[in-house]
Amino acid sequence: MRILVINPNTTASMTEKIGAAARRVAGSGTEIVAVNPVSGPASIEGYYDEAMSLAGLLGLIRSTPDVDAIVIACFDDTGLDAARCLTDKPVVGIGEAAYHFASLLANNFTVITTLARSVPALEHNLVRYGLAARCARVRASNIPVLDLEDPESDACERIGEEVLKAIEEDRAEAIVLGCAGMTELSETLSQRYGLPVLDGVVCAVTLCESLVRVGGRTSRLGGYAPPRFDKRAVA
Amino acid sequence: MRILVINPNTTASMTEKIGAAARRVAGSGTEIVAVNPVSGPASIEGYYDEAMSLAGLLGLIRSTPDVDAIVIACFDDTGLDAARCLTDKPVVGIGEAAYHFASLLANNFTVITTLARSVPALEHNLVRYGLAARCARVRASNIPVLDLEDPESDACERIGEEVLKAIEEDRAEAIVLGCAGMTELSETLSQRYGLPVLDGVVCAVTLCESLVRVGGRTSRLGGYAPPRFDKRAVA
Amino acid sequence: MRILVINPNTTASMTEKIGAAARRVAGSGTEIVAVNPVSGPASIEGYYDEAMSLAGLLGLIRSTPDVDAIVIACFDDTGLDAARCLTDKPVVGIGEAAYHFASLLANNFTVITTLARSVPALEHNLVRYGLAARCARVRASNIPVLDLEDPESDACERIGEEVLKAIEEDRAEAIVLGCAGMTELSETLSQRYGLPVLDGVVCAVTLCESLVRVGGRTSRLGGYAPPRFDKRAVA
Amino acid sequence: MRILVINPNTTASMTEKIGAAARRVAGSGTEIVAVNPVSGPASIEGYYDEAMSLAGLLGLIRSTPDVDAIVIACFDDTGLDAARCLTDKPVVGIGEAAYHFASLLANNFTVITTLARSVPALEHNLVRYGLAARCARVRASNIPVLDLEDPESDACERIGEEVLKAIEEDRAEAIVLGCAGMTELSETLSQRYGLPVLDGVVCAVTLCESLVRVGGRTSRLGGYAPPRFDKRAVA
Amino acid sequence: MRILVINPNTTASMTEKIGAAARRVAGSGTEIVAVNPVSGPASIEGYYDEAMSLAGLLGLIRSTPDVDAIVIACFDDTGLDAARCLTDKPVVGIGEAAYHFASLLANNFTVITTLARSVPALEHNLVRYGLAARCARVRASNIPVLDLEDPESDACERIGEEVLKAIEEDRAEAIVLGCAGMTELSETLSQRYGLPVLDGVVCAVTLCESLVRVGGRTSRLGGYAPPRFDKRAVA
Amino acid sequence: MRILVINPNTTASMTEKIGAAARRVAGSGTEIVAVNPVSGPASIEGYYDEAMSLAGLLGLIRSTPDVDAIVIACFDDTGLDAARCLTDKPVVGIGEAAYHFASLLANNFTVITTLARSVPALEHNLVRYGLAARCARVRASNIPVLDLEDPESDACERIGEEVLKAIEEDRAEAIVLGCAGMTELSETLSQRYGLPVLDGVVCAVTLCESLVRVGGRTSRLGGYAPPRFDKRAVA
Repeated sequence: MRILVINPNTTASMTEKIGAAARRVAGSGTEIVAVNPVSGPASIEGYYDEAMSLAGLLGLIRSTPDVDAIVIACFDDTGLDAARCLTDKPVVGIGEAAYHFASLLANNFTVITTLARSVPALEHNLVRYGLAARCARVRASNIPVLDLEDPESDACERIGEEVLKAIEEDRAEAIVLGCAGMTELSETLSQRYGLPVLDGVVCAVTLCESLVRVGGRTSRLGGYAPPRFDKRAVA
Repeated sequence: MRILVINPNTTASMTEKIGAAARRVAGSGTEIVAVNPVSGPASIEGYYDEAMSLAGLLGLIRSTPDVDAIVIACFDDTGLDAARCLTDKPVVGIGEAAYHFASLLANNFTVITTLARSVPALEHNLVRYGLAARCARVRASNIPVLDLEDPESDACERIGEEVLKAIEEDRAEAIVLGCAGMTELSETLSQRYGLPVLDGVVCAVTLCESLVRVGGRTSRLGGYAPPRFDKRAVA
Repeated sequence: MRILVINPNTTASMTEKIGAAARRVAGSGTEIVAVNPVSGPASIEGYYDEAMSLAGLLGLIRSTPDVDAIVIACFDDTGLDAARCLTDKPVVGIGEAAYHFASLLANNFTVITTLARSVPALEHNLVRYGLAARCARVRASNIPVLDLEDPESDACERIGEEVLKAIEEDRAEAIVLGCAGMTELSETLSQRYGLPVLDGVVCAVTLCESLVRVGGRTSRLGGYAPPRFDKRAVA
Repeated sequence: MRILVINPNTTASMTEKIGAAARRVAGSGTEIVAVNPVSGPASIEGYYDEAMSLAGLLGLIRSTPDVDAIVIACFDDTGLDAARCLTDKPVVGIGEAAYHFASLLANNFTVITTLARSVPALEHNLVRYGLAARCARVRASNIPVLDLEDPESDACERIGEEVLKAIEEDRAEAIVLGCAGMTELSETLSQRYGLPVLDGVVCAVTLCESLVRVGGRTSRLGGYAPPRFDKRAVA
Repeated sequence: MRILVINPNTTASMTEKIGAAARRVAGSGTEIVAVNPVSGPASIEGYYDEAMSLAGLLGLIRSTPDVDAIVIACFDDTGLDAARCLTDKPVVGIGEAAYHFASLLANNFTVITTLARSVPALEHNLVRYGLAARCARVRASNIPVLDLEDPESDACERIGEEVLKAIEEDRAEAIVLGCAGMTELSETLSQRYGLPVLDGVVCAVTLCESLVRVGGRTSRLGGYAPPRFDKRAVA
Repeated sequence: MRILVINPNTTASMTEKIGAAARRVAGSGTEIVAVNPVSGPASIEGYYDEAMSLAGLLGLIRSTPDVDAIVIACFDDTGLDAARCLTDKPVVGIGEAAYHFASLLANNFTVITTLARSVPALEHNLVRYGLAARCARVRASNIPVLDLEDPESDACERIGEEVLKAIEEDRAEAIVLGCAGMTELSETLSQRYGLPVLDGVVCAVTLCESLVRVGGRTSRLGGYAPPRFDKRAVA
């Protein structure tokens, strides 16, 4: 099985980290193809970055047809619906994957993301997926995405503070880490605070494997009908 | 006052029709600048077309700074959130404008759009705006967007059939026309069927004028904070 | 164009203030007719005052037929549905107008009203309109309505404190001022705190102008069907 | 125990019918005081009639202080919130009473009311009470309220047709009769169609008895705080 | 009238307390039969205890056919839906009874229960009943159920502290006591804090009396259809 | 990896069919332990059967500690919350598994279950999970569970008729088969009707494998805290 894991931003160090996490969790017969667009935003922080990464993201899907499933490795699930129009293979966003898994392990969860500007986009996704009812709160740690790439940063401590607040103030039973750049922190935080801490990258990769194994295919009816590429304006 | 009206698809005849409708309704001191991107989808029918029109749409906003408000003249409100990150001027989508106006004139409304593939995107917008509670149903007329540009088509009759069903089956008190290409039909249908029939283009233009007059500005806090264009990946 | 602006309480100084705000924002061709009932509550603070103002409010509508649109200038949108049964002209409440405008400028908003007793009525309106999803919180400033008429009061400072809490605790991106008596404060507060602060009076007046310009008429189907004035009990 | 049962319309024959139904179900120690205003609408069909009955309704409450509980015997629960501001005695609307009882006997219910114009008001009440989730549909039988007073009318048959549709199309497990004038039909329809058919008058009367017996009192905090009758406009 | 009041846990002292409260509020012609299973959990704190009490609870219903109504006297309304499949008599849970009564006396309410582990089950019930919209918050007092049986405990004081927080932080207009073991505290707390404090036991008993008096019967259509006891596996 | 697959009814032929389906989809290193209780209902059709199967179901979990994950193979997700209190291993119901997978492949889905009496329980689960927003409708095929075990039955045809209605009337983009006994039909129906048709058994098994691989554990905080087995009533 071959899974295309797309980091929709252009920061190669993040793509490497995501690819490594994906390979660690993938089954022995699964090949991970981790890529990022060559141009576009260096990180995706809010609606504008999201929009500007779409052409690159969708181009990578169109130019890599020979895969069994696709992971969109940005926590705001950038371009998820558009990507599903391009293929009947399963397409899974790391945000939705983490939300679905957290919903199976706990009555509710708190999301801890990077900047405040990203919060509304995540809240809208949760409403659209139906899982807002399961989310206690979306918290911003005020750590820019690319600071997570800096080994000197105190990201783990600052996220840990938010985990404690989530347990006490939100009565959260689980935590979802709201950025692909946090993929390495989940085990540490889970052990330190004694509750499930979910990273979307590994959730999405194994979910893709599951979907492929059950023969799941993206619906071609309704909203994900293939685009009509040949339409022309009436002269 | 100067309002930038962007048709995010590349069909110039539709931009002209939209611009004409906007000028008819605009106040005497309002200048309408109606534009469309030079490249991108010829019509926007579903998630993929939406995504592929964003770079053109946002480029037009960045290259036209000297305006007082912006209308996004595609009924799925393509790129609305991203556009709001680029400016503190009011930005109004024709879909949301029509939903808000219909909510002020009737207890509920039915939307009549073009193809079935567009229905989920509109339903998601309605949920995100909060106005799903006011929408009785989103109906597809099965008329492709560009057929609306064809004066020989029977679009008005087919949309009329859906209006009748909306009144009888959905108990709709008002109709929202779900495509910028239907802008010329609203008055005819309203008189024929005796209920408010709203076209988003004129709603959005006058709403922009209102927002400008009350000094309304897009919030710079939270989700619409200006993008950080200068961020760079950690080496 | 002639807009009837009804202050449903009997405090003439408030009617004057509302009328002045309406005239400042109205277009050059718009005449504002600002009136209040001669009897009824001096201010509308909660459900009972609302109910007791209705006969006066609806009487003013019936006795002033020659208008193009009607604004109900009480923030709880007193009698809005009943008023719409009396006319096919647009009828807009200042509460709903401010909620709709705030929804166009920000992902969410906090309402700051007068007394705690008014909060549930506003919350119910937000649910009924569908816009509860957009409202972060309804806050009471504990300033009685008529204290807002007193130039010596510290109303602006106390409301400012609630604005700060709204930004910090509610993560509000915009503020809606929840009383017609606050109409003069919006600009000051907006500049001081750097976010949109909306006053319903000016929103409703310009919204009426927009609705008239697009030919919008209150639906006569369903819930706003004209009352049957001639019905008699079976003997 | 003394229960004030107010028919907010002026049709005395309906008041008598309501009073008789209330007395049949009331406990031996309960006195029913059934009244109606001397002026106001002859029937309440929609928002305008509702508004115009409020002064009479609230006047009856203020002039009858010596009661243990109050029933508002109009199915749209006219003036319920305003009435609760006037007293700490329980106040129960016949609409809400029937919805609550139906929720205890079935997974869902369909409401069958009189005219289509009344449907939105009932739907709004259901949303406000929280019980919209339990209501499959609000159906209009197209029988004007006062026709229910006419012994020659075919009301029972026409409502029966709607009951059948509710079972088949709405998968309703119970029926709520949506007008005080239908109080005599519930037993007949329940036996004929084999499912619970609830009349609000008897539900509200026994619910008031229950609330009095458990010492229940309307809250004086928040939205039902007593009105301030002595406020005066600032000169 | 004969009402079966089932305490689904095996703590006889709690059954006695519940039975006494039921008898104090019941009408003169009502016989209260208060019982508990002989085996099962000593208290019901969370989902597992709930599940393990069901066989005992349902067995008591099947072995006591000669009753007019049934009260399930555990605040999580253990087995309510299953019980309704066994009888067309009214079956009322003390949780839902208190929620419905609180909804009739106040715009909103806060629930104060025992342990944090019980909170999600109560929240799920509120969503399922539709009344989550009326509940400001479910608070845990961190008092185990059986400590409420200990006259030396400081339960009343600790619950009182939560009542104060509910008024200030939740803006609650009424309180619901979230455990059958708190039945004796409602009057004291209501007088001390000046708002309605509802105990589910007395609400459920009087609600059953009301339902019986109006001829209410559990629906046999849909979800509460009688179980097919005779089905056998295909050989 | 060892997955305990519990069919909570006592029909061994159904357990065998479920076990076979589980083994076909499971990874090479996964052992499937398919069991059913020795006593309890022969099939689970509605709330009462659900309740009566719980003691057997939970007993099997307590007596089989040496597993890595647990599947509850009844479509109403019988005892799911109670089971999660007994273990920190992942526990997945086949209903929720299918709903989550369908949400990843389509904008919406229709559920086709056995008898009408099961519909409300499934609807309540969907609301509780948050996924009601994704479900177009729950349809009953009117095929009793055990008829699905009969190779002579016309189950596939009757379910196929409901699939067609789901596509046309519900605008469903995917189908969820609402009974463990339908596990063999999904591939046939998917090919015949050209849309994703999901069987919960294979979804749940692969989902468990995924959850184990990412180190997912059921939360021990809040609602799934381990039961206190040693509590005793106060003497």
